[in-house]
Amino acid sequence: MELTGKQLIGYAESGEGPASFSGVDPRERRSLPPRYFAASEAEIERAMVLAAAAFEPYRRLPARHRSAFLRAVAREIEALGERLEERACAETALPPGRIRSERLRTTSQLAAFADLLDEGSWVDARIDHGDAQRKPQPKPDLRRMKVALGPVVVFGASNFPLAFSVAGGDTASALAAGCPVVVKAHPGHPGTSELIGRAVLAAARAQRLPEGVFSLLHGPLPDTGLALVRHPHARAVGFTGSARAGRALMDAAAARPDPIPVHAEMGSVNPVVVLPGAADRDLEALSNLLFASCTLGGGQFCTQPGLLIAVGAEAARLAEALGRRAEAAAAEPLLYAGLADAYAAGVERLVAQRGVELVGRGRPGPEGSGAPVVLRCSVSTALEHPELLEEVFGPVTVVIDAPAAETLLELVERLPGQLTATLHAAEADLSEHAPLLQALERKVGRLLFGGVPTGVEVVPAMHHAGPYPASSDVRATSVGSAAIERFVRPICYQDAPAALLPAELRDDNPAGILRLVNGTWTRS
Amino acid sequence: MELTGKQLIGYAESGEGPASFSGVDPRERRSLPPRYFAASEAEIERAMVLAAAAFEPYRRLPARHRSAFLRAVAREIEALGERLEERACAETALPPGRIRSERLRTTSQLAAFADLLDEGSWVDARIDHGDAQRKPQPKPDLRRMKVALGPVVVFGASNFPLAFSVAGGDTASALAAGCPVVVKAHPGHPGTSELIGRAVLAAARAQRLPEGVFSLLHGPLPDTGLALVRHPHARAVGFTGSARAGRALMDAAAARPDPIPVHAEMGSVNPVVVLPGAADRDLEALSNLLFASCTLGGGQFCTQPGLLIAVGAEAARLAEALGRRAEAAAAEPLLYAGLADAYAAGVERLVAQRGVELVGRGRPGPEGSGAPVVLRCSVSTALEHPELLEEVFGPVTVVIDAPAAETLLELVERLPGQLTATLHAAEADLSEHAPLLQALERKVGRLLFGGVPTGVEVVPAMHHAGPYPASSDVRATSVGSAAIERFVRPICYQDAPAALLPAELRDDNPAGILRLVNGTWTRS
Repeated sequence: MELTGKQLIGYAESGEGPASFSGVDPRERRSLPPRYFAASEAEIERAMVLAAAAFEPYRRLPARHRSAFLRAVAREIEALGERLEERACAETALPPGRIRSERLRTTSQLAAFADLLDEGSWVDARIDHGDAQRKPQPKPDLRRMKVALGPVVVFGASNFPLAFSVAGGDTASALAAGCPVVVKAHPGHPGTSELIGRAVLAAARAQRLPEGVFSLLHGPLPDTGLALVRHPHARAVGFTGSARAGRALMDAAAARPDPIPVHAEMGSVNPVVVLPGAADRDLEALSNLLFASCTLGGGQFCTQPGLLIAVGAEAARLAEALGRRAEAAAAEPLLYAGLADAYAAGVERLVAQRGVELVGRGRPGPEGSGAPVVLRCSVSTALEHPELLEEVFGPVTVVIDAPAAETLLELVERLPGQLTATLHAAEADLSEHAPLLQALERKVGRLLFGGVPTGVEVVPAMHHAGPYPASSDVRATSVGSAAIERFVRPICYQDAPAALLPAELRDDNPAGILRLVNGTWTRS
Repeated sequence: MELTGKQLIGYAESGEGPASFSGVDPRERRSLPPRYFAASEAEIERAMVLAAAAFEPYRRLPARHRSAFLRAVAREIEALGERLEERACAETALPPGRIRSERLRTTSQLAAFADLLDEGSWVDARIDHGDAQRKPQPKPDLRRMKVALGPVVVFGASNFPLAFSVAGGDTASALAAGCPVVVKAHPGHPGTSELIGRAVLAAARAQRLPEGVFSLLHGPLPDTGLALVRHPHARAVGFTGSARAGRALMDAAAARPDPIPVHAEMGSVNPVVVLPGAADRDLEALSNLLFASCTLGGGQFCTQPGLLIAVGAEAARLAEALGRRAEAAAAEPLLYAGLADAYAAGVERLVAQRGVELVGRGRPGPEGSGAPVVLRCSVSTALEHPELLEEVFGPVTVVIDAPAAETLLELVERLPGQLTATLHAAEADLSEHAPLLQALERKVGRLLFGGVPTGVEVVPAMHHAGPYPASSDVRATSVGSAAIERFVRPICYQDAPAALLPAELRDDNPAGILRLVNGTWTRS
């Protein structure tokens, strides 16, 4: 398989736009061939028209056919073997072990959605039988289930070149739902994207799916993405990235003649609150745990804890312990060229605030890398400078001193929405701090008791979203099986002839799915 | 109970703004005392601040306490007796029978949400147990359920003074979810609104709920509503009304620093498609059925069929039969002063289009009333003048001649999103028209086979929403138990101590609700 740098539009390739950019190895700022073409307006139009045409036949395939497709995509990705690993490592500077585990996560996600389709209950089928004898009006027969929403535009994320990119969670959940997908590749890893895009299309061909069920477009500038979000055929958007870019997509979608939902996961600082009881226990072990989470994957996870809050004297001890670890650590290469500069500038912005102390900084590395940084400030400084509560993407963590529980509560109340918050506390702390727990819960999608927020399990009980600006819609998760709900909508049939009903709504319930029949959940 | 015309803010009354308007009996354009005060900025602020303060204690009440509250609201509404009936009839010109049935619908909705809370499975609880032995990382314990979103702003609808107003479906579902509600009363029925508002507050007091769980504000101009939607404490909006007003709220919500969801149900023309087989059967009976639906409640239902589409010669016969019925009918008083003028102007706009034939018009009535009108045009006229496919609120119906099935399909493809579509067809028609069925399904939230779209059942299988502009979010119903999902969001607890878990997520499952435990739906 030769990389061509072209758009993959349905089952065809196209390179009409300018060949304007390349993948770059951020460790050496070395361009990796081939040159990539930016999608032209006509190419964007073709991809969306094909997606709209594929929608009806694709969504009406039996669920087993869609699940077979997802499993085939997983196999094709596995078959890419070392080629994928090498390209992804070169384009992102992530180590091979991380790419391998991310590939496993990607294929596992595809398999999990295939399992969900095979089981079938996710369509939330509801049946209320009619009653011709009811007075004053006969009661109609009503049957409702969730069906695909329409073509979905997915944006590849820089920090998950596999698991939240071309065939990542957004694409897997949209394809599972029955929605064709047009992916806008992240320009940070175009070659990885092309390899995966070709794998998806190989699976689609093998499964004889309608052309247009998947397309992959490139474009280094925001225009391509905005044109996709504004396209009349787009029915929903999946995005993982910065708050600025996510909000631009939200605004574009809201300004359409027909607004569409944008599911943007925009990251956050994921506060870790350490109460006295926990700090007393074993500060060294806690520091090791937290430092590892702050710097995992170069500190480039959306759940990276960028804010540690401790009450009283423990804050100083914790900052000191983390600072020591930072000093002993080396810079790591960051995801793409330019990110290291943005990281350095972001850290300088934080350090420049009056009242912020630089506690520790790792050894500098080559161009393109970023060293762990630990900062410290008081609650009052943080409240005066709310930018200290905003994410700087990379391995930087701000430790905040809260002299007492009340100031801690005030700080938490002022936090913007977060994907997660983590509480390290002894049992006695918890009963004393009920208002703090309630405040944290209002601010987050996931509340952890102990542990670290990095490492997002792919299970049905996961909720990976948070109040804005952590994500665009706190109601919708981008991780776990519930992610499929973002791309479906109910349809209700009234007095439909049995022969026209989908299998999920027939009285005989051939797949034995769980349904709400006349007010009772049942599989019969 | 004396009507005062004041804002009901928490458990206090307030009349700071100008006493600027009154309820009006639209049959006589006669003002009904008292004068109503428009909410001041400070009153809006107080209502929202109280709602935010009530949020945490209210949402944490046991579900049984919230269900008792909903049942108490229903009892208080029943206790209003004839007083409510008289005031609602006077303010809306709806007949007593309609008001009585709507009151029953309102109290039944409250009871249905109370039942939902008592059963409890609606929280969609999911538990994935941890595994300390898992390699390379231990698996955490994850538990997720749906919890209240926060204060909800509800807009009373003009056309359902009880069932979609102060204690209607939006309020009932938000209160059930655990969200405090601030209602902006519709200025068309302020007295009815005050009566119901006082009933809700009497129930809240009796149940010792935190002050601010419910407030009722008045305001005849759009400013009040926009200020509520823009208020930082608002977390979601429920609205039933015009597309213009709904879109203004959507835009205001999307432009907030932190965008919030707006659930706007904006009505539609609810096309009824009559295929040859059905028209052949019994055109007279069909015409009776359709005419009754077109004029039910003065044609002022959001599911009123404003568009009838028939293929071939049947269109002319159907138009003639409906026109005859219109001619024999009398004008009926419309909901509020000004609506009759808007209706007359809307009908004139339709009639003025080249190619539109006035087939029948009912006898004119007194000022403030609207007569049934039947118009007819060809598909090509309708395609040239898309305003013929847009709702004119009131008892007007456009019959469209489709010379052949292909033109019918083209017309359906061009329709904006609809709450419903209804297909009258013989069995043979259905198998011939698969693409038509698919196109209709893409356009609607509810697809009826036979019957009429008016009469929206309040059952779990109902879906009352449609693609934009029928509603702001096709994924969310405003009728039926699933309406609660609009006002909740998941929260996920990781490794939470058992003592801190809500009952719904404890291992012993005290309420016996249906949960997804380690991938299996179970009540144990």
